[in-house]
Amino acid sequence: MTSLRQRKIQLFQENNKDKARLLISCPDQPGIVAAVSKFLFDHGANILQSDQYSIDPEGGGRFFMRVEFILPNLSEREKHLEEEFSIIGENFKMDWHFAYAYHIKRMAIFVSKQDHCLMELLWQWQAGDLVADIPVVISNHPDLGPTVEQLGIPFYHIPVTKETKQEAEQKQLKLLEEYKIDVSVLARYMQILSPEFIAAQPLKIINIHHSFLPAFIGARPYERAYERGVKIIGATSHYVTDDLDEGPIIEQGVQRVNHSNNAEDLKRIGRSVERSVLARAVTWHLEDRVIAFKNKTVVFG
Amino acid sequence: MTSLRQRKIQLFQENNKDKARLLISCPDQPGIVAAVSKFLFDHGANILQSDQYSIDPEGGGRFFMRVEFILPNLSEREKHLEEEFSIIGENFKMDWHFAYAYHIKRMAIFVSKQDHCLMELLWQWQAGDLVADIPVVISNHPDLGPTVEQLGIPFYHIPVTKETKQEAEQKQLKLLEEYKIDVSVLARYMQILSPEFIAAQPLKIINIHHSFLPAFIGARPYERAYERGVKIIGATSHYVTDDLDEGPIIEQGVQRVNHSNNAEDLKRIGRSVERSVLARAVTWHLEDRVIAFKNKTVVFG
Amino acid sequence: MTSLRQRKIQLFQENNKDKARLLISCPDQPGIVAAVSKFLFDHGANILQSDQYSIDPEGGGRFFMRVEFILPNLSEREKHLEEEFSIIGENFKMDWHFAYAYHIKRMAIFVSKQDHCLMELLWQWQAGDLVADIPVVISNHPDLGPTVEQLGIPFYHIPVTKETKQEAEQKQLKLLEEYKIDVSVLARYMQILSPEFIAAQPLKIINIHHSFLPAFIGARPYERAYERGVKIIGATSHYVTDDLDEGPIIEQGVQRVNHSNNAEDLKRIGRSVERSVLARAVTWHLEDRVIAFKNKTVVFG
Amino acid sequence: MTSLRQRKIQLFQENNKDKARLLISCPDQPGIVAAVSKFLFDHGANILQSDQYSIDPEGGGRFFMRVEFILPNLSEREKHLEEEFSIIGENFKMDWHFAYAYHIKRMAIFVSKQDHCLMELLWQWQAGDLVADIPVVISNHPDLGPTVEQLGIPFYHIPVTKETKQEAEQKQLKLLEEYKIDVSVLARYMQILSPEFIAAQPLKIINIHHSFLPAFIGARPYERAYERGVKIIGATSHYVTDDLDEGPIIEQGVQRVNHSNNAEDLKRIGRSVERSVLARAVTWHLEDRVIAFKNKTVVFG
Repeated sequence: MTSLRQRKIQLFQENNKDKARLLISCPDQPGIVAAVSKFLFDHGANILQSDQYSIDPEGGGRFFMRVEFILPNLSEREKHLEEEFSIIGENFKMDWHFAYAYHIKRMAIFVSKQDHCLMELLWQWQAGDLVADIPVVISNHPDLGPTVEQLGIPFYHIPVTKETKQEAEQKQLKLLEEYKIDVSVLARYMQILSPEFIAAQPLKIINIHHSFLPAFIGARPYERAYERGVKIIGATSHYVTDDLDEGPIIEQGVQRVNHSNNAEDLKRIGRSVERSVLARAVTWHLEDRVIAFKNKTVVFG
Repeated sequence: MTSLRQRKIQLFQENNKDKARLLISCPDQPGIVAAVSKFLFDHGANILQSDQYSIDPEGGGRFFMRVEFILPNLSEREKHLEEEFSIIGENFKMDWHFAYAYHIKRMAIFVSKQDHCLMELLWQWQAGDLVADIPVVISNHPDLGPTVEQLGIPFYHIPVTKETKQEAEQKQLKLLEEYKIDVSVLARYMQILSPEFIAAQPLKIINIHHSFLPAFIGARPYERAYERGVKIIGATSHYVTDDLDEGPIIEQGVQRVNHSNNAEDLKRIGRSVERSVLARAVTWHLEDRVIAFKNKTVVFG
Repeated sequence: MTSLRQRKIQLFQENNKDKARLLISCPDQPGIVAAVSKFLFDHGANILQSDQYSIDPEGGGRFFMRVEFILPNLSEREKHLEEEFSIIGENFKMDWHFAYAYHIKRMAIFVSKQDHCLMELLWQWQAGDLVADIPVVISNHPDLGPTVEQLGIPFYHIPVTKETKQEAEQKQLKLLEEYKIDVSVLARYMQILSPEFIAAQPLKIINIHHSFLPAFIGARPYERAYERGVKIIGATSHYVTDDLDEGPIIEQGVQRVNHSNNAEDLKRIGRSVERSVLARAVTWHLEDRVIAFKNKTVVFG
Repeated sequence: MTSLRQRKIQLFQENNKDKARLLISCPDQPGIVAAVSKFLFDHGANILQSDQYSIDPEGGGRFFMRVEFILPNLSEREKHLEEEFSIIGENFKMDWHFAYAYHIKRMAIFVSKQDHCLMELLWQWQAGDLVADIPVVISNHPDLGPTVEQLGIPFYHIPVTKETKQEAEQKQLKLLEEYKIDVSVLARYMQILSPEFIAAQPLKIINIHHSFLPAFIGARPYERAYERGVKIIGATSHYVTDDLDEGPIIEQGVQRVNHSNNAEDLKRIGRSVERSVLARAVTWHLEDRVIAFKNKTVVFG
């Protein structure tokens, strides 16, 4: 299967060797699209897809944009392009960055004992459907080590207790740095991260919560869903912020259940929802489709 | 359209003239199904559909059953049948009742100003899809009077203020009695009912809440959904109990939304979900498919 | 309710008095977005939303674009704007048109005997959710006349037989002209239109087919779905072309069913899907979100 | 992970050591439920769940039933129970069989080159969610051998050409016999089976077709879905009969797509639907929830 992945990634890089996405978030005002599209045209880029969205467009609103374009010999021109664009960026007070599709993002996965979210990600990765490198998996338990190492991915077991938490996070951060990680995914990692850890990677940590937030925030959501007698359960993937389960939501999914499903059934059914919701959220992040602003996300289709 | 309804109801009564449903809730023990099915067979009934469900069947669990059957000349034998069955009912400590399909249930609708849930019910009623009589609509506002009366349904405008609430509820209860109401539906009726009012009709009041409970309990759910940035919104229909928005859930539904939908969009999209969720819940209640137990429902398909 | 609609439409027109959408379909090449956005900026427009999509972008593909913008005093400048844009349109070989949001589209509805799709459209229209004028309803049966006329909408009963079909279509076309109709909706209108009738209004007729096309093309789809034992049924809304049920699909929807549902149940369940699918398709058309190309549609979100 | 599976299976067998399901299909007549439930009660069984369904109950219809029950020391009494029940079976002209939950079914999987359906089944099997033994995987290609063997499952590569097809099927049938296979799953096995092969295992072969049948019967469904411009794609799991893609449907699932998805996207999105639809169908078969009759299935919830 590795070879399938390698073939797909190689094909991906060939197909995307000149492709980039420009992501913009700025105060709304007339002329932004014109300025950006003129800039790209003047530099010889061909726009493949362009999406934009404004909040409160009539008032002092916020403007969001994602442009995907092709530009010949892009890899040699990255730096120059960014320097030139910085003038527009300054004029319009933009938060902006170019994401180059051929720079495969480096993704760390954090797990505890449950394997379903990890396995879905690894599987889509093996199939070449999830375009990322996965140089490291980190866990507070040793259980999933063999599964991960069997795929040739280094696995680090870093136990976490109240006493060792700070030290454990230092180790984790060092690994993220060593492995040049772009994004971390908490694939049912059952530890609460410290504000310091989160602050070190703002909007770079994606979590999956096993409920349809804001319903059943916190612990034991399936048990509480069962006790409440809901007819639909769900899962939520969001960026991690200091407020537990309150970060910007990237994606949610649901599944119908009924009175004959007990709490164990809900967990089993929910695993399937968690897997697909997390995989979609991660894919969109990897494709630079998500812009977070305050406590929400804009997800460009 | 009235004639379509009348033709359908007439057809319904012909097709259902000997049809009843027996609903049972009791402590679980061996022999219940055997006793019930023997009873029905001995009385000449043919079982059309039979569903049962047990909670914690191995332990001291609870047993629920719905049997739909046909029995020739049933309308003349109702009383006799119930007397005979009461022995079994006593033996097994059952909550039980026979619901005769040809007894069309009498349904009151409570509304305020918003018409979408009311209209959905009236429309399905006119089409003969919702098998009920609707002898009265009650509202704390006059606005929807003409719409309702145009269909030949009496409309009562009973204003409610803090001061007049008790008196208003007395008037409402009197109407429910006068019109021999079997079930009341709160079709976006924006008033909280008193414990006395609810106690007078236990598990006979169905509400629609415009969120995916337990998310966004209480007021302004769409505005709060927008502020939280959820990717899916929903609606919940439940029996009304003293705990606001905490009664046994009958049905829920959801709809996908995205960042470009503002709070007004969520309301518009949500109206469609509310309509279909409420209509399904009411239909299931009318077909005697719902058994409430503690804070949950068993809904037989 | 009429007054609710009138208030909403008035509010809509105030909110949209300077709003338009520019729709473009042309051969793909670099510079289109730049040219269009520069044009709009130079004319003082502020872009609210801009979506584009290219098929086969690397090769000789096709480019589609929808831009929604605000331009002060737009209603006085329509003609001038279009004249000026025609130069760009010619350069890029565009199919293009400006749709002015404050020009409320005029919609005719064709029905036969079934009322559910008609009622959904009328209801959303009354609620002000469907932004259109409905100056006329045409039917080959008299049954729905009172319902329609009660809302103050002229109803024309034009019977259709094999012999009178050509003449009937002439009458219909004359009505469409008299009432200055922009779009016709076949709300379960059970007649096949002649190629001449369709050719007179290309991509201006929207149909609802009561199956998940291409499954169950043609007659009696619910009966055939029942006979096949499918577990999901659906509905499809599409532009009408000469090939029966083969026109560009605008929207589809589905609903889960099971073995206990007979053909009548499927019809009842399906009515709900048909209503929502048709209403979505019509709404998107009214908001100028749909561009048809060959046998497909691009639907901008 | 193997140990997780082993622990779960062990737990399953303990929890189910006295549990069986009785499946019945017979001409409808009064007294069936009474006879069956009396029989079970007389033999000391406690009914856990009982579902029944009748087609055309008023006329000469067909009756279907699934009863799940617990009976102490069941494994020693299997033969006796079946002998005693055969009298009832004969009286009512039943097709009937007892399925003992503790008899873990033996499942063969057939694959070609694509691994997603295989992997989903193996994964749920490893997690103990899919309660079956998988003693053998058979493929007409060697590619997936290492993946399968790594899990300790024998993999047989049996190439199939026009010339060798008969011989290949003989080998396959021999393997099914050797490994005492109860059910075979075609997990995207891209070969058409001969009528002889199918006749040897009636209603024991489950296929997944990568379209929402009856739409896109036959080859290249995703390409054809793309060409038709559908807005929803799907997958269908069915029992294999002589008519290609026409066997009784067990389960279907769908997923929304849009104009920006090309045929490759549809395949990728579809893989996820195929996986979940096939897994549900297989699970229901393993839990003895499916009764096929003519060209349809009754699936008890």
